[in-house]
Amino acid sequence: MTAGRFFEDFDVGQELIHATPRTVSAGDASLYLALYGGRFAPQSSVPFAQALGYRSAPLDDWLVFHLIFGKSVPDVSVNAIANLGYAEGQFLAPVYVGDTLRAISTVLGMRENRDGQSGIVYVRTRGLNQDNVCVLSYCRWVMVRKRDPKTPYPVSDVPDLAPYLSPEQLTPPAQAYHSFDPHLSGGNAFWEDYAVGQVIDHGGGTTIEDAEHMMATRLYQNTARVHFDGAFQAQTRFKRRLVYGGHIISIARALSFNGLENAFAVAGLNAGKHIGPIFAGDTVYAASQITDLVPIADRSDVGALRVRQRVTQNVSAEQSFADPEPSACVLDLDLWLWLPRRP
Amino acid sequence: MTAGRFFEDFDVGQELIHATPRTVSAGDASLYLALYGGRFAPQSSVPFAQALGYRSAPLDDWLVFHLIFGKSVPDVSVNAIANLGYAEGQFLAPVYVGDTLRAISTVLGMRENRDGQSGIVYVRTRGLNQDNVCVLSYCRWVMVRKRDPKTPYPVSDVPDLAPYLSPEQLTPPAQAYHSFDPHLSGGNAFWEDYAVGQVIDHGGGTTIEDAEHMMATRLYQNTARVHFDGAFQAQTRFKRRLVYGGHIISIARALSFNGLENAFAVAGLNAGKHIGPIFAGDTVYAASQITDLVPIADRSDVGALRVRQRVTQNVSAEQSFADPEPSACVLDLDLWLWLPRRP
Amino acid sequence: MTAGRFFEDFDVGQELIHATPRTVSAGDASLYLALYGGRFAPQSSVPFAQALGYRSAPLDDWLVFHLIFGKSVPDVSVNAIANLGYAEGQFLAPVYVGDTLRAISTVLGMRENRDGQSGIVYVRTRGLNQDNVCVLSYCRWVMVRKRDPKTPYPVSDVPDLAPYLSPEQLTPPAQAYHSFDPHLSGGNAFWEDYAVGQVIDHGGGTTIEDAEHMMATRLYQNTARVHFDGAFQAQTRFKRRLVYGGHIISIARALSFNGLENAFAVAGLNAGKHIGPIFAGDTVYAASQITDLVPIADRSDVGALRVRQRVTQNVSAEQSFADPEPSACVLDLDLWLWLPRRP
Repeated sequence: MTAGRFFEDFDVGQELIHATPRTVSAGDASLYLALYGGRFAPQSSVPFAQALGYRSAPLDDWLVFHLIFGKSVPDVSVNAIANLGYAEGQFLAPVYVGDTLRAISTVLGMRENRDGQSGIVYVRTRGLNQDNVCVLSYCRWVMVRKRDPKTPYPVSDVPDLAPYLSPEQLTPPAQAYHSFDPHLSGGNAFWEDYAVGQVIDHGGGTTIEDAEHMMATRLYQNTARVHFDGAFQAQTRFKRRLVYGGHIISIARALSFNGLENAFAVAGLNAGKHIGPIFAGDTVYAASQITDLVPIADRSDVGALRVRQRVTQNVSAEQSFADPEPSACVLDLDLWLWLPRRP
Repeated sequence: MTAGRFFEDFDVGQELIHATPRTVSAGDASLYLALYGGRFAPQSSVPFAQALGYRSAPLDDWLVFHLIFGKSVPDVSVNAIANLGYAEGQFLAPVYVGDTLRAISTVLGMRENRDGQSGIVYVRTRGLNQDNVCVLSYCRWVMVRKRDPKTPYPVSDVPDLAPYLSPEQLTPPAQAYHSFDPHLSGGNAFWEDYAVGQVIDHGGGTTIEDAEHMMATRLYQNTARVHFDGAFQAQTRFKRRLVYGGHIISIARALSFNGLENAFAVAGLNAGKHIGPIFAGDTVYAASQITDLVPIADRSDVGALRVRQRVTQNVSAEQSFADPEPSACVLDLDLWLWLPRRP
Repeated sequence: MTAGRFFEDFDVGQELIHATPRTVSAGDASLYLALYGGRFAPQSSVPFAQALGYRSAPLDDWLVFHLIFGKSVPDVSVNAIANLGYAEGQFLAPVYVGDTLRAISTVLGMRENRDGQSGIVYVRTRGLNQDNVCVLSYCRWVMVRKRDPKTPYPVSDVPDLAPYLSPEQLTPPAQAYHSFDPHLSGGNAFWEDYAVGQVIDHGGGTTIEDAEHMMATRLYQNTARVHFDGAFQAQTRFKRRLVYGGHIISIARALSFNGLENAFAVAGLNAGKHIGPIFAGDTVYAASQITDLVPIADRSDVGALRVRQRVTQNVSAEQSFADPEPSACVLDLDLWLWLPRRP
């Protein structure tokens, strides 16, 4: 059995080729739908997607993210204490049923923690399809246990990650959105209809079930023990299984349909933090604040919306935008989204 | 965020074009199978279905119903207090993997309740495939909150709905059932073998799980809050999440295989009532009584069976047919089913 | 409603043609993945599988087993008190998405129990695809209730089942494994790298959920009441639903990836025993001991590994190989596995 990498097993510049390649199927898309309930039209309807120029219905962006993330777990975060943050996440090309995804990570930096027990490892993970097209690239940093706390690691090599993607760093989708039909998509608001500062409460919440987060996490072939082994977890300070943080990201995306019905794709993950643990039985709510609104050069059909998306536990998320340090907030995302422009 | 229509927002004659179109996939059919355990042969085996003349294995009729129903929720019943009844439900054409479904409702009638707080809205909902073939049409009526109880709504426009579909209103399936193989289908009883008055106990029950009814309901893109938001529901008189009534219909259909093994399709929904709420932890049972048996003109291969199908909570369903007012009954359906005739 | 066969309804030599044929879909494979989290490369990636000579990604062997087993339940074990054992299980050909499976059982033997209340029935069950290729063949014996304890059954006809399959009885896979890529598959150990006597602890466990084992068991169209009817089970000595034993076999297979990453297929089921019942809430662990290592004639690319695979409840499985009678062991399998040889 593979014990997984400890802090000392990483090297800056190291390339990690992750197992296992995965052909994405219609079954994966259906399960994802049943787990989150997404209603964004291009992902739901092949004819709707094809009318925009997609080859077929694209997979939900976060499904792609989780599949790639899952592959990196055995090599990057099996011995992780915490998943600390994300940066520079770029969704670069649509992924379709039948595509085969694989993942590669590069170690960007390392830094030992003061107590000598652990350190922080920074990686860039890239997801590639069967044609070697990079469909996703993102950075994350995790706190990893040291194998031997007595061996100091004197070098500190913290990479210079952008606090957010500038609009120029986004890769506009290759499709054309002039004919995006708001009757079919379920929402009347186009890119022009949002305003910076606006807070959108996405409404009703979702109560988390163990069976659901475990099925989701296995669907991503993410086998981190903390999500599955209840007997082991009972002996930790958490007392029970931890929900994979990505599960909450996908719940937020699905809830965000209420108010962001036409935000058909995620363009970028500027930053993201899993602030607190989530357990089965918790009910989560989501709200978004529009923080920027940028047109795209030479594109009259599509624009980018920057949003702060927050998930709260057992209380409404909308209020979290009034508090400077919202206490019940469990997830805080800074995203770029694509929206069609008003025809 | 869309607040949804209140009673005052409906108009008789109004047409509601529902979002989101949905391409049905092999994954949807598998999930449906895993959620209910259906064993009807044409839906399970492509060669079995093709031998009868189907293009491929047709989807379960109630899966089609729930997909269409789910689309109507945001426009019709987000502010509903109760889903009161169904009538004139006709299953008109098979739906296959790869088909794209959309839904349109027409407001048939409206009537204010005496207390002025709410009213009843009657709609006909139609499901269409990518070729604009109507695959399903049914009426339902829901009790909807008024936005402002002080504004009276004096007109009362109750549509004249048939108490049940006459056999002539059924659309016989276009396939030929002479070669329906009872060894493969798992049952020896053909249309001729049933008798009016006969009660069939469908046997063992199913215990409901929150994870299962939520996955089912999301699969149908039905996002009514009562099914998902446990924290919100804890403050209602129900104290917990309500199971989508359609989930119980599908459980009844799957259980009904025991005794109705060759009832390969649902022909019509004459009437249906969700009598009481169902919660996770409840165990439900089903039984059917044959109430009519009609041959179909010019068809020696297929006949229609009318059944009263009842679901009970925590007690056997068979007994409900002895009681005039069965207390534990949570669902009461009046259906037409298709069965092959004895060759 | 079919009451199912009692002991007296079986005859040695009898052939039982099971309902319902099933076309396996991409959705079935995805659900299976979400329920267990398998990471074996040929089952996960179409290009990986095709590079070895498979037509597409083969289904997990145990998914095939459960689908065939499920079909036999209404005819063989609806009135079973216990599923006592397996022998001579041979996985004979890959099954792919789109294949249609059916099952036939032959009664091999019968023996009444001393108390006259029940007897043991031995069957061989075969799974066939749409081309009548036998993809799986195995024996099992079950204890079945007698309809009438007063009628004695004097004949005792116990078949002579092999205690295990000799290597010559295995059907080597038709594909070529010279190019099996350990970077993509996620493990460096080839057939040569294992040693007889070696015990592999497969690591972290899985906590069982009612929603998951019920969805799995329904996916296999196995409708044995004990798995679903919680109200009925509450009145038995078990007090709750029993988990289908095959669910535990599949959990063991998925867990065994840690340490047996390249064991790409199951070759044979020599023997298997479900030692104790498993319930939702239990956490199960798996470990394997290598008991034999045999080369295959004229094959330099693939070898067979015989393993004893044990699943324990709430305690580590590794230790069960130290105890002669491990108390917490709930499943004990004797398997042949296929592994690529070191190139």
